[in-house]
Amino acid sequence: MAVRTVTSPDDVRAACDAARARGERVGLVPTMGALHAGHLALVAEAKRRARFIVVSIFVNPSQFGPNDDFARYPRDLDGDVGKLARAGVDVVFAPDVPAVYASDDQTRVRAGAVAEPLEGAHRPGHFEGVATIVAKLFGIAGPCVAVFGRKDYQQLLVVRRMARDLFFPVEVVGHRTVRESDGLAMSSRNAYLSPDERTRALSIVKGLDAAARRFQVGERRARELERIVRESIEPNAASIDYVEARDAESLAPINGEVSARAVLAVACRVGSTRLIDNLVLGEEGPPLGA
Amino acid sequence: MAVRTVTSPDDVRAACDAARARGERVGLVPTMGALHAGHLALVAEAKRRARFIVVSIFVNPSQFGPNDDFARYPRDLDGDVGKLARAGVDVVFAPDVPAVYASDDQTRVRAGAVAEPLEGAHRPGHFEGVATIVAKLFGIAGPCVAVFGRKDYQQLLVVRRMARDLFFPVEVVGHRTVRESDGLAMSSRNAYLSPDERTRALSIVKGLDAAARRFQVGERRARELERIVRESIEPNAASIDYVEARDAESLAPINGEVSARAVLAVACRVGSTRLIDNLVLGEEGPPLGA
Repeated sequence: MAVRTVTSPDDVRAACDAARARGERVGLVPTMGALHAGHLALVAEAKRRARFIVVSIFVNPSQFGPNDDFARYPRDLDGDVGKLARAGVDVVFAPDVPAVYASDDQTRVRAGAVAEPLEGAHRPGHFEGVATIVAKLFGIAGPCVAVFGRKDYQQLLVVRRMARDLFFPVEVVGHRTVRESDGLAMSSRNAYLSPDERTRALSIVKGLDAAARRFQVGERRARELERIVRESIEPNAASIDYVEARDAESLAPINGEVSARAVLAVACRVGSTRLIDNLVLGEEGPPLGA
Repeated sequence: MAVRTVTSPDDVRAACDAARARGERVGLVPTMGALHAGHLALVAEAKRRARFIVVSIFVNPSQFGPNDDFARYPRDLDGDVGKLARAGVDVVFAPDVPAVYASDDQTRVRAGAVAEPLEGAHRPGHFEGVATIVAKLFGIAGPCVAVFGRKDYQQLLVVRRMARDLFFPVEVVGHRTVRESDGLAMSSRNAYLSPDERTRALSIVKGLDAAARRFQVGERRARELERIVRESIEPNAASIDYVEARDAESLAPINGEVSARAVLAVACRVGSTRLIDNLVLGEEGPPLGA
Protein backbone atom coordinates (compact mmCIF):
# COMPACT_ATOMS: atom_id res chain seq x y z
CA MET A 1 0.00 0.00 0.00
CA ALA A 2 1.30 3.46 -0.87
CA VAL A 3 2.13 5.96 1.85
CA ARG A 4 -0.63 8.44 2.73
CA THR A 5 0.30 11.99 3.65
CA VAL A 6 -2.16 13.36 6.16
CA THR A 7 -2.41 16.81 7.70
CA SER A 8 -5.37 16.39 10.06
CA PRO A 9 -5.10 14.75 13.50
CA ASP A 10 -8.59 13.29 12.99
CA ASP A 11 -7.46 11.53 9.81
CA VAL A 12 -4.41 10.07 11.55
CA ARG A 13 -6.61 8.81 14.38
CA ALA A 14 -9.08 7.27 11.93
CA ALA A 15 -6.27 5.49 10.06
CA CYS A 16 -4.81 4.16 13.33
CA ASP A 17 -8.23 3.11 14.63
CA ALA A 18 -8.80 1.19 11.37
CA ALA A 19 -5.40 -0.50 11.71
CA ARG A 20 -6.17 -1.49 15.31
CA ALA A 21 -9.57 -2.82 14.19
CA ARG A 22 -7.65 -5.06 11.76
CA GLY A 23 -5.62 -6.30 14.72
CA GLU A 24 -2.48 -4.43 13.71
CA ARG A 25 -0.06 -2.86 16.16
CA VAL A 26 0.58 0.84 15.52
CA GLY A 27 4.16 2.14 15.59
CA LEU A 28 5.03 5.85 15.71
CA VAL A 29 8.27 7.62 14.78
CA PRO A 30 8.11 11.34 15.63
CA THR A 31 10.49 13.45 13.53
CA MET A 32 11.04 17.05 12.51
CA GLY A 33 11.69 15.97 8.90
CA ALA A 34 14.87 16.60 6.86
CA LEU A 35 15.20 12.87 7.13
CA HIS A 36 18.51 11.03 7.04
CA ALA A 37 19.59 7.43 7.47
CA GLY A 38 19.24 7.78 11.26
CA HIS A 39 15.53 8.45 10.93
CA LEU A 40 15.15 5.56 8.48
CA ALA A 41 16.80 3.27 11.04
CA LEU A 42 14.10 4.35 13.54
CA VAL A 43 11.44 3.49 10.96
CA ALA A 44 13.01 0.07 10.38
CA GLU A 45 13.03 -0.51 14.15
CA ALA A 46 9.35 0.48 14.35
CA LYS A 47 8.54 -1.94 11.53
CA ARG A 48 10.16 -4.76 13.47
CA ARG A 49 7.80 -4.01 16.37
CA ALA A 50 4.53 -2.95 14.74
CA ARG A 51 2.64 -3.58 11.50
CA PHE A 52 1.17 -0.11 10.88
CA ILE A 53 3.70 2.72 10.85
CA VAL A 54 3.03 6.41 11.30
CA VAL A 55 5.87 8.91 10.90
CA SER A 56 5.17 12.47 11.97
CA ILE A 57 7.01 15.35 10.34
CA PHE A 58 6.52 18.47 12.39
CA VAL A 59 8.98 21.22 13.27
CA ASN A 60 7.50 21.84 16.70
CA PRO A 61 7.69 25.53 17.60
CA SER A 62 7.20 25.00 21.35
CA GLN A 63 10.55 23.21 21.68
CA PHE A 64 12.55 26.04 20.09
CA GLY A 65 13.71 29.04 22.08
CA PRO A 66 13.68 32.61 20.71
CA ASN A 67 17.34 32.35 19.64
CA ASP A 68 17.04 28.83 18.24
CA ASP A 69 16.89 27.86 14.58
CA PHE A 70 13.13 27.29 14.21
CA ALA A 71 12.76 29.48 11.13
CA ARG A 72 15.75 28.07 9.27
CA TYR A 73 15.45 24.46 10.45
CA PRO A 74 15.84 22.37 7.24
CA ARG A 75 12.53 21.36 5.61
CA ASP A 76 12.07 18.98 2.65
CA LEU A 77 8.61 17.42 2.81
CA ASP A 78 8.58 16.03 -0.73
CA GLY A 79 11.97 14.40 -0.33
CA ASP A 80 10.97 13.07 3.10
CA VAL A 81 7.72 11.53 1.85
CA GLY A 82 9.63 9.78 -0.98
CA LYS A 83 12.07 8.25 1.52
CA LEU A 84 9.24 7.13 3.82
CA ALA A 85 7.28 5.62 0.91
CA ARG A 86 10.30 3.54 -0.02
CA ALA A 87 10.72 2.56 3.65
CA GLY A 88 7.19 1.12 3.70
CA VAL A 89 5.60 3.68 6.02
CA ASP A 90 1.78 3.72 6.02
CA VAL A 91 0.99 7.27 7.12
CA VAL A 92 3.07 10.46 7.08
CA PHE A 93 1.53 12.97 9.48
CA ALA A 94 2.64 16.44 8.37
CA PRO A 95 0.33 18.94 10.08
CA ASP A 96 0.64 22.70 10.10
CA VAL A 97 1.03 24.41 13.47
CA PRO A 98 -2.66 25.33 14.03
CA ALA A 99 -3.69 21.69 13.49
CA VAL A 100 -1.65 20.71 16.54
CA TYR A 101 -1.77 23.89 18.62
CA ALA A 102 -5.24 25.45 18.67
CA SER A 103 -5.10 29.24 18.82
CA ASP A 104 -5.94 29.13 22.56
CA ASP A 105 -3.86 26.04 23.32
CA GLN A 106 -1.89 26.57 26.52
CA THR A 107 -1.64 23.03 27.88
CA ARG A 108 1.93 22.05 28.59
CA VAL A 109 3.53 18.87 29.95
CA ARG A 110 6.59 19.07 32.20
CA ALA A 111 8.76 16.06 32.95
CA GLY A 112 10.54 17.23 36.10
CA ALA A 113 14.13 16.72 37.20
CA VAL A 114 15.25 14.57 34.27
CA ALA A 115 14.53 17.55 31.99
CA GLU A 116 16.52 20.06 34.02
CA PRO A 117 20.28 19.58 33.46
CA LEU A 118 22.25 19.47 30.18
CA GLU A 119 19.93 20.45 27.29
CA GLY A 120 17.30 21.58 29.79
CA ALA A 121 19.73 24.06 31.35
CA HIS A 122 20.92 25.39 28.00
CA ARG A 123 17.55 25.43 26.21
CA PRO A 124 14.96 26.67 28.72
CA GLY A 125 11.51 25.34 27.84
CA HIS A 126 12.88 22.92 25.26
CA PHE A 127 11.79 19.73 27.01
CA GLU A 128 8.43 21.13 28.00
CA GLY A 129 7.90 21.61 24.27
CA VAL A 130 9.14 18.09 23.56
CA ALA A 131 7.02 16.43 26.25
CA THR A 132 3.98 18.39 25.11
CA ILE A 133 4.25 17.56 21.41
CA VAL A 134 4.98 13.90 22.11
CA ALA A 135 1.96 13.68 24.44
CA LYS A 136 -0.13 15.20 21.63
CA LEU A 137 1.22 12.70 19.10
CA PHE A 138 0.55 9.83 21.52
CA GLY A 139 -2.99 11.15 21.93
CA ILE A 140 -3.51 11.44 18.18
CA ALA A 141 -2.05 8.12 17.03
CA GLY A 142 -2.40 5.98 20.17
CA PRO A 143 0.69 3.95 19.28
CA CYS A 144 1.70 0.65 20.88
CA VAL A 145 5.33 1.51 20.30
CA ALA A 146 7.22 4.73 19.60
CA VAL A 147 10.86 4.87 18.52
CA PHE A 148 13.31 7.66 19.35
CA GLY A 149 17.00 8.05 18.57
CA ARG A 150 19.54 7.84 21.36
CA LYS A 151 21.52 10.71 19.87
CA ASP A 152 18.91 12.81 21.68
CA TYR A 153 19.56 10.84 24.85
CA GLN A 154 17.96 13.19 27.35
CA GLN A 155 14.90 13.57 25.10
CA LEU A 156 14.49 9.78 25.20
CA LEU A 157 14.57 9.86 29.01
CA VAL A 158 12.08 12.75 29.14
CA VAL A 159 9.66 10.99 26.79
CA ARG A 160 9.99 7.69 28.63
CA ARG A 161 9.34 9.36 31.98
CA MET A 162 6.36 11.30 30.62
CA ALA A 163 4.85 8.19 29.04
CA ARG A 164 5.30 6.21 32.22
CA ASP A 165 3.95 8.89 34.56
CA LEU A 166 0.88 9.64 32.41
CA PHE A 167 0.28 5.92 31.79
CA PHE A 168 0.30 6.17 28.01
CA PRO A 169 -0.10 2.55 26.85
CA VAL A 170 3.01 2.77 24.68
CA GLU A 171 6.45 1.20 24.69
CA VAL A 172 9.10 3.88 24.21
CA VAL A 173 12.06 2.39 22.37
CA GLY A 174 15.47 4.02 22.10
CA HIS A 175 17.52 3.25 19.00
CA ARG A 176 21.30 3.44 18.92
CA THR A 177 22.84 6.56 17.38
CA VAL A 178 23.41 6.14 13.66
CA ARG A 179 26.71 7.62 12.49
CA GLU A 180 28.28 8.64 9.21
CA SER A 181 31.08 6.35 8.00
CA ASP A 182 33.63 8.60 9.73
CA GLY A 183 31.70 8.53 13.01
CA LEU A 184 29.83 11.86 13.02
CA ALA A 185 26.41 11.38 14.60
CA MET A 186 23.75 11.86 11.96
CA SER A 187 21.71 15.02 12.47
CA SER A 188 19.56 17.20 10.26
CA ARG A 189 21.64 20.09 11.57
CA ASN A 190 24.81 18.66 10.01
CA ALA A 191 23.52 20.28 6.80
CA TYR A 192 24.47 23.65 8.33
CA LEU A 193 28.20 22.74 8.49
CA SER A 194 30.79 24.08 6.05
CA PRO A 195 33.41 21.55 4.86
CA ASP A 196 35.89 22.89 7.42
CA GLU A 197 33.30 22.74 10.20
CA ARG A 198 32.34 19.22 9.12
CA THR A 199 35.96 18.18 9.78
CA ARG A 200 36.07 20.03 13.11
CA ALA A 201 32.77 18.39 14.16
CA LEU A 202 34.51 15.02 14.09
CA SER A 203 36.37 16.11 17.23
CA ILE A 204 33.17 15.30 19.18
CA VAL A 205 33.00 11.62 18.32
CA LYS A 206 36.79 11.38 18.51
CA GLY A 207 36.63 12.71 22.05
CA LEU A 208 33.87 10.29 23.03
CA ASP A 209 35.82 7.48 21.41
CA ALA A 210 38.97 8.33 23.34
CA ALA A 211 36.98 8.45 26.60
CA ALA A 212 35.35 5.09 25.83
CA ARG A 213 38.78 3.53 25.25
CA ARG A 214 40.10 4.91 28.53
CA PHE A 215 36.95 3.61 30.26
CA GLN A 216 37.58 0.17 28.75
CA VAL A 217 41.05 0.04 30.29
CA GLY A 218 39.77 1.02 33.71
CA GLU A 219 39.45 4.79 33.96
CA ARG A 220 36.43 5.54 36.18
CA ARG A 221 37.00 9.14 37.31
CA ALA A 222 34.12 11.20 35.88
CA ARG A 223 36.15 14.44 35.69
CA GLU A 224 38.98 12.69 33.85
CA LEU A 225 36.62 11.12 31.29
CA GLU A 226 35.05 14.54 30.72
CA ARG A 227 38.52 16.10 30.37
CA ILE A 228 39.44 13.65 27.62
CA VAL A 229 36.39 14.68 25.60
CA ARG A 230 36.96 18.38 26.19
CA GLU A 231 40.58 18.07 25.11
CA SER A 232 39.46 16.80 21.72
CA ILE A 233 36.66 19.32 21.20
CA GLU A 234 38.11 22.53 22.62
CA PRO A 235 40.47 23.40 19.73
CA ASN A 236 37.67 22.78 17.23
CA ALA A 237 34.54 24.24 18.81
CA ALA A 238 33.43 27.87 18.96
CA SER A 239 32.01 27.10 22.41
CA ILE A 240 31.18 24.14 24.62
CA ASP A 241 27.82 24.10 26.42
CA TYR A 242 28.64 21.00 28.46
CA VAL A 243 30.65 17.83 28.60
CA GLU A 244 29.25 15.85 31.51
CA ALA A 245 29.14 12.31 32.83
CA ARG A 246 25.78 11.71 34.52
CA ASP A 247 23.74 8.80 35.79
CA ALA A 248 22.24 7.19 32.69
CA GLU A 249 18.73 6.88 34.19
CA SER A 250 18.24 9.90 36.48
CA LEU A 251 20.86 12.21 34.95
CA ALA A 252 22.03 12.90 38.51
CA PRO A 253 25.59 14.31 38.62
CA ILE A 254 28.42 11.91 39.26
CA ASN A 255 30.88 12.96 41.92
CA GLY A 256 34.04 10.95 41.84
CA GLU A 257 33.84 7.62 40.06
CA VAL A 258 31.46 6.20 37.51
CA SER A 259 29.91 3.12 39.14
CA ALA A 260 26.39 2.55 37.74
CA ARG A 261 25.37 3.10 34.11
CA ALA A 262 26.53 6.56 33.07
CA VAL A 263 26.04 8.70 30.01
CA LEU A 264 28.79 10.98 28.78
CA ALA A 265 26.94 13.82 27.06
CA VAL A 266 28.25 16.68 24.93
CA ALA A 267 26.82 19.87 23.46
CA CYS A 268 28.94 22.41 21.63
CA ARG A 269 28.92 24.83 18.76
CA VAL A 270 31.04 24.19 15.69
CA GLY A 271 30.97 27.48 13.85
CA SER A 272 27.45 28.65 14.61
CA THR A 273 25.93 25.16 14.50
CA ARG A 274 24.98 23.55 17.80
CA LEU A 275 25.68 19.82 17.87
CA ILE A 276 25.05 17.16 20.53
CA ASP A 277 26.30 13.62 20.98
CA ASN A 278 26.64 11.09 23.78
CA LEU A 279 27.86 7.68 24.80
CA VAL A 280 26.58 5.29 27.46
CA LEU A 281 29.76 4.17 29.17
CA GLY A 282 30.22 0.44 29.49
CA GLU A 283 27.11 -0.28 27.45
CA GLU A 284 28.34 1.08 24.15
CA GLY A 285 31.88 0.46 22.96
CA PRO A 286 34.10 3.15 21.40
CA PRO A 287 31.97 4.73 18.64
CA LEU A 288 34.81 4.62 16.11
CA GLY A 289 35.00 0.83 16.48
CA ALA A 290 38.02 -1.46 16.36
CA MET B 1 -21.95 -8.68 36.91
CA ALA B 2 -20.74 -7.59 40.34
CA VAL B 3 -18.49 -4.58 40.74
CA ARG B 4 -14.75 -5.29 40.88
CA THR B 5 -12.55 -3.20 43.14
CA VAL B 6 -9.12 -2.82 41.61
CA THR B 7 -6.01 -1.13 42.97
CA SER B 8 -3.55 -1.60 40.12
CA PRO B 9 -3.50 0.58 36.98
CA ASP B 10 -2.53 -2.47 34.93
CA ASP B 11 -5.66 -4.31 36.08
CA VAL B 12 -7.88 -1.36 35.18
CA ARG B 13 -6.29 -1.17 31.76
CA ALA B 14 -6.74 -4.92 31.21
CA ALA B 15 -10.42 -4.71 32.19
CA CYS B 16 -10.98 -1.75 29.86
CA ASP B 17 -9.06 -3.42 27.01
CA ALA B 18 -11.27 -6.49 27.43
CA ALA B 19 -14.40 -4.34 27.36
CA ARG B 20 -13.21 -2.60 24.19
CA ALA B 21 -12.44 -5.99 22.64
CA ARG B 22 -16.09 -6.89 23.30
CA GLY B 23 -17.06 -3.73 21.42
CA GLU B 24 -18.12 -1.87 24.56
CA ARG B 25 -17.61 1.85 25.09
CA VAL B 26 -15.75 2.69 28.29
CA GLY B 27 -17.05 5.47 30.53
CA LEU B 28 -15.01 7.00 33.37
CA VAL B 29 -16.19 8.97 36.41
CA PRO B 30 -13.23 10.29 38.40
CA THR B 31 -14.07 10.96 42.06
CA MET B 32 -12.36 11.45 45.40
CA GLY B 33 -14.88 9.14 47.10
CA ALA B 34 -17.21 10.05 50.00
CA LEU B 35 -19.87 9.61 47.36
CA HIS B 36 -23.21 11.38 47.43
CA ALA B 37 -26.17 11.60 45.06
CA GLY B 38 -24.25 14.07 42.88
CA HIS B 39 -21.61 11.45 42.12
CA LEU B 40 -24.29 8.84 41.45
CA ALA B 41 -25.88 11.21 38.93
CA LEU B 42 -22.52 11.34 37.13
CA VAL B 43 -22.45 7.54 37.09
CA ALA B 44 -25.99 7.42 35.65
CA GLU B 45 -24.94 9.93 32.98
CA ALA B 46 -21.89 7.78 32.13
CA LYS B 47 -24.12 4.71 31.85
CA ARG B 48 -26.31 6.52 29.33
CA ARG B 49 -23.21 7.09 27.19
CA ALA B 50 -21.09 3.95 27.66
CA ARG B 51 -21.57 0.28 28.44
CA PHE B 52 -18.54 -0.37 30.67
CA ILE B 53 -18.21 2.00 33.62
CA VAL B 54 -15.10 2.71 35.66
CA VAL B 55 -15.32 4.94 38.74
CA SER B 56 -12.04 6.02 40.29
CA ILE B 57 -11.85 6.81 43.99
CA PHE B 58 -8.61 8.60 44.73
CA VAL B 59 -7.94 11.51 47.04
CA ASN B 60 -5.27 13.03 44.81
CA PRO B 61 -2.52 14.62 46.91
CA SER B 62 -1.14 16.78 44.07
CA GLN B 63 -4.30 18.89 43.92
CA PHE B 64 -4.23 19.81 47.61
CA GLY B 65 -2.14 22.67 48.94
CA PRO B 66 -0.22 22.50 52.21
CA ASN B 67 -3.07 24.20 54.09
CA ASP B 68 -5.84 22.22 52.39
CA ASP B 69 -7.83 19.36 53.89
CA PHE B 70 -6.01 16.41 52.28
CA ALA B 71 -5.48 14.52 55.52
CA ARG B 72 -9.00 14.96 56.83
CA TYR B 73 -10.85 14.73 53.50
CA PRO B 74 -13.73 12.28 54.15
CA ARG B 75 -13.00 8.67 53.15
CA ASP B 76 -15.48 5.76 53.13
CA LEU B 77 -14.32 3.16 50.62
CA ASP B 78 -16.62 0.35 51.80
CA GLY B 79 -19.68 2.59 51.72
CA ASP B 80 -18.65 3.97 48.32
CA VAL B 81 -18.17 0.52 46.77
CA GLY B 82 -21.62 -0.53 48.00
CA LYS B 83 -23.22 2.52 46.37
CA LEU B 84 -21.35 1.92 43.11
CA ALA B 85 -22.28 -1.77 43.07
CA ARG B 86 -25.96 -0.84 43.36
CA ALA B 87 -25.44 1.76 40.61
CA GLY B 88 -24.23 -0.94 38.22
CA VAL B 89 -20.60 0.16 37.97
CA ASP B 90 -18.20 -2.42 36.52
CA VAL B 91 -14.85 -1.40 38.02
CA VAL B 92 -14.00 0.73 41.05
CA PHE B 93 -10.40 1.90 40.76
CA ALA B 94 -9.15 2.70 44.25
CA PRO B 95 -5.36 2.88 44.08
CA ASP B 96 -2.98 3.97 46.79
CA VAL B 97 -0.75 6.97 46.08
CA PRO B 98 2.38 5.05 44.97
CA ALA B 99 0.34 3.13 42.36
CA VAL B 100 -0.43 6.42 40.61
CA TYR B 101 2.63 8.50 41.52
CA ALA B 102 5.87 6.54 41.21
CA SER B 103 8.42 7.61 43.80
CA ASP B 104 10.32 9.59 41.14
CA ASP B 105 7.21 10.83 39.33
CA GLN B 106 7.59 14.52 38.52
CA THR B 107 5.53 14.82 35.33
CA ARG B 108 2.93 17.54 35.60
CA VAL B 109 0.29 18.83 33.19
CA ARG B 110 -0.61 22.52 33.13
CA ALA B 111 -3.73 23.85 31.43
CA GLY B 112 -2.81 27.53 31.02
CA ALA B 113 -4.96 30.62 31.36
CA VAL B 114 -8.25 28.86 32.08
CA ALA B 115 -6.66 27.47 35.26
CA GLU B 116 -5.40 30.81 36.55
CA PRO B 117 -8.30 32.88 37.99
CA LEU B 118 -10.86 31.91 40.66
CA GLU B 119 -9.86 28.55 42.19
CA GLY B 120 -6.49 28.75 40.46
CA ALA B 121 -5.69 32.05 42.16
CA HIS B 122 -6.82 30.85 45.59
CA ARG B 123 -5.40 27.33 45.41
CA PRO B 124 -1.96 27.58 43.75
CA GLY B 125 -1.06 24.30 42.03
CA HIS B 126 -4.57 22.90 42.44
CA PHE B 127 -5.41 22.63 38.74
CA GLU B 128 -1.97 21.36 37.82
CA GLY B 129 -2.76 18.51 40.21
CA VAL B 130 -6.21 18.06 38.68
CA ALA B 131 -4.98 18.10 35.06
CA THR B 132 -2.19 15.68 35.96
CA ILE B 133 -4.35 13.10 37.74
CA VAL B 134 -7.04 13.24 35.05
CA ALA B 135 -4.41 12.76 32.33
CA LYS B 136 -3.15 9.73 34.28
CA LEU B 137 -6.69 8.32 34.60
CA PHE B 138 -7.29 8.88 30.88
CA GLY B 139 -4.03 7.06 30.18
CA ILE B 140 -4.95 4.17 32.46
CA ALA B 141 -8.57 3.60 31.41
CA GLY B 142 -8.61 5.05 27.88
CA PRO B 143 -12.25 6.09 28.23
CA CYS B 144 -14.50 7.14 25.32
CA VAL B 145 -16.40 9.39 27.68
CA ALA B 146 -15.65 10.94 31.08
CA VAL B 147 -18.23 12.70 33.22
CA PHE B 148 -17.52 15.60 35.60
CA GLY B 149 -19.86 17.66 37.77
CA ARG B 150 -20.50 21.28 36.89
CA LYS B 151 -20.35 22.26 40.55
CA ASP B 152 -16.58 22.22 39.91
CA TYR B 153 -17.11 24.41 36.87
CA GLN B 154 -13.55 25.58 36.37
CA GLN B 155 -12.27 22.03 36.82
CA LEU B 156 -14.55 20.95 33.97
CA LEU B 157 -13.07 23.67 31.74
CA VAL B 158 -9.52 22.72 32.72
CA VAL B 159 -10.12 19.04 31.99
CA ARG B 160 -11.86 19.78 28.70
CA ARG B 161 -9.01 22.04 27.59
CA MET B 162 -6.38 19.52 28.62
CA ALA B 163 -8.18 16.67 26.83
CA ARG B 164 -8.59 18.74 23.68
CA ASP B 165 -5.00 20.06 23.61
CA LEU B 166 -3.41 16.64 24.26
CA PHE B 167 -5.82 14.94 21.82
CA PHE B 168 -7.11 12.40 24.31
CA PRO B 169 -9.79 10.49 22.35
CA VAL B 170 -12.39 11.14 25.02
CA GLU B 171 -15.61 13.14 25.22
CA VAL B 172 -15.61 15.23 28.40
CA VAL B 173 -19.18 15.64 29.62
CA GLY B 174 -20.29 18.15 32.23
CA HIS B 175 -23.28 17.20 34.37
CA ARG B 176 -25.54 19.79 36.00
CA THR B 177 -24.95 20.47 39.69
CA VAL B 178 -27.04 18.17 41.88
CA ARG B 179 -28.55 19.97 44.90
CA GLU B 180 -30.09 18.99 48.22
CA SER B 181 -33.83 19.55 48.44
CA ASP B 182 -33.22 23.01 49.92
CA GLY B 183 -30.80 23.94 47.12
CA LEU B 184 -27.37 23.46 48.72
CA ALA B 185 -24.97 22.10 46.11
CA MET B 186 -24.01 18.54 47.02
CA SER B 187 -20.39 18.24 48.12
CA SER B 188 -18.41 15.73 50.13
CA ARG B 189 -17.22 18.72 52.15
CA ASN B 190 -20.78 19.47 53.33
CA ALA B 191 -20.11 16.74 55.91
CA TYR B 192 -17.80 19.21 57.69
CA LEU B 193 -20.67 21.66 58.38
CA SER B 194 -22.30 22.04 61.81
CA PRO B 195 -26.12 22.42 61.79
CA ASP B 196 -25.77 26.20 62.12
CA GLU B 197 -23.17 26.33 59.33
CA ARG B 198 -25.40 24.13 57.16
CA THR B 199 -28.11 26.80 57.44
CA ARG B 200 -25.64 29.61 56.74
CA ALA B 201 -24.30 27.72 53.69
CA LEU B 202 -27.70 28.09 52.07
CA SER B 203 -26.91 31.78 51.61
CA ILE B 204 -24.71 30.78 48.65
CA VAL B 205 -27.45 29.22 46.55
CA LYS B 206 -29.90 31.88 47.73
CA GLY B 207 -27.54 34.55 46.43
CA LEU B 208 -27.09 32.78 43.09
CA ASP B 209 -30.83 32.35 42.88
CA ALA B 210 -31.46 36.03 43.51
CA ALA B 211 -28.89 36.97 40.85
CA ALA B 212 -30.45 34.56 38.34
CA ARG B 213 -33.88 36.13 38.94
CA ARG B 214 -32.49 39.62 38.43
CA PHE B 215 -30.75 38.38 35.25
CA GLN B 216 -34.08 36.96 34.02
CA VAL B 217 -35.71 40.37 34.33
CA GLY B 218 -32.94 42.09 32.41
CA GLU B 219 -30.06 42.92 34.78
CA ARG B 220 -26.82 42.56 32.78
CA ARG B 221 -24.30 44.56 34.83
CA ALA B 222 -21.67 42.08 36.02
CA ARG B 223 -20.79 44.06 39.18
CA GLU B 224 -24.44 44.34 40.17
CA LEU B 225 -25.05 40.58 39.71
CA GLU B 226 -21.96 39.89 41.83
CA ARG B 227 -23.18 42.38 44.46
CA ILE B 228 -26.48 40.54 44.79
CA VAL B 229 -24.66 37.28 45.55
CA ARG B 230 -22.27 38.93 48.00
CA GLU B 231 -25.13 40.57 49.82
CA SER B 232 -26.63 37.16 50.56
CA ILE B 233 -23.38 35.46 51.56
CA GLU B 234 -21.54 38.18 53.48
CA PRO B 235 -23.51 37.98 56.74
CA ASN B 236 -23.15 34.19 56.77
CA ALA B 237 -19.61 33.50 55.62
CA ALA B 238 -16.39 33.66 57.62
CA SER B 239 -14.71 34.92 54.44
CA ILE B 240 -15.36 35.21 50.72
CA ASP B 241 -12.61 34.16 48.30
CA TYR B 242 -14.44 35.43 45.23
CA VAL B 243 -17.80 36.18 43.70
CA GLU B 244 -17.16 36.79 40.02
CA ALA B 245 -18.99 36.82 36.72
CA ARG B 246 -16.67 35.57 33.99
CA ASP B 247 -16.88 34.39 30.40
CA ALA B 248 -18.24 30.84 30.59
CA GLU B 249 -15.69 29.41 28.12
CA SER B 250 -12.46 31.35 28.64
CA LEU B 251 -13.10 32.61 32.20
CA ALA B 252 -11.97 36.02 30.96
CA PRO B 253 -13.17 38.86 33.24
CA ILE B 254 -16.34 40.70 32.27
CA ASN B 255 -16.10 44.46 32.34
CA GLY B 256 -19.46 46.12 32.18
CA GLU B 257 -22.28 43.99 30.89
CA VAL B 258 -22.78 40.25 30.53
CA SER B 259 -23.27 39.61 26.80
CA ALA B 260 -22.03 36.12 25.89
CA ARG B 261 -22.44 33.02 28.11
CA ALA B 262 -21.21 33.90 31.58
CA VAL B 263 -20.60 31.92 34.73
CA LEU B 264 -21.25 33.46 38.13
CA ALA B 265 -18.82 31.66 40.42
CA VAL B 266 -18.51 31.73 44.22
CA ALA B 267 -16.02 30.46 46.77
CA CYS B 268 -16.30 31.21 50.47
CA ARG B 269 -15.74 29.76 53.88
CA VAL B 270 -18.68 28.94 56.12
CA GLY B 271 -17.10 28.36 59.49
CA SER B 272 -13.83 26.76 58.49
CA THR B 273 -15.31 24.85 55.54
CA ARG B 274 -14.53 26.12 52.06
CA LEU B 275 -17.49 25.79 49.69
CA ILE B 276 -17.90 26.60 45.99
CA ASP B 277 -20.91 26.95 43.75
CA ASN B 278 -21.76 28.56 40.41
CA LEU B 279 -24.45 29.31 37.90
CA VAL B 280 -24.25 29.74 34.12
CA LEU B 281 -26.34 32.83 33.53
CA GLY B 282 -29.04 32.51 30.93
CA GLU B 283 -28.38 28.80 30.45
CA GLU B 284 -29.49 27.67 33.89
CA GLY B 285 -32.57 29.12 35.55
CA PRO B 286 -32.71 30.17 39.21
CA PRO B 287 -31.39 27.16 41.17
CA LEU B 288 -34.20 27.33 43.72
CA GLY B 289 -36.75 26.86 40.94
CA ALA B 290 -40.26 28.28 40.58
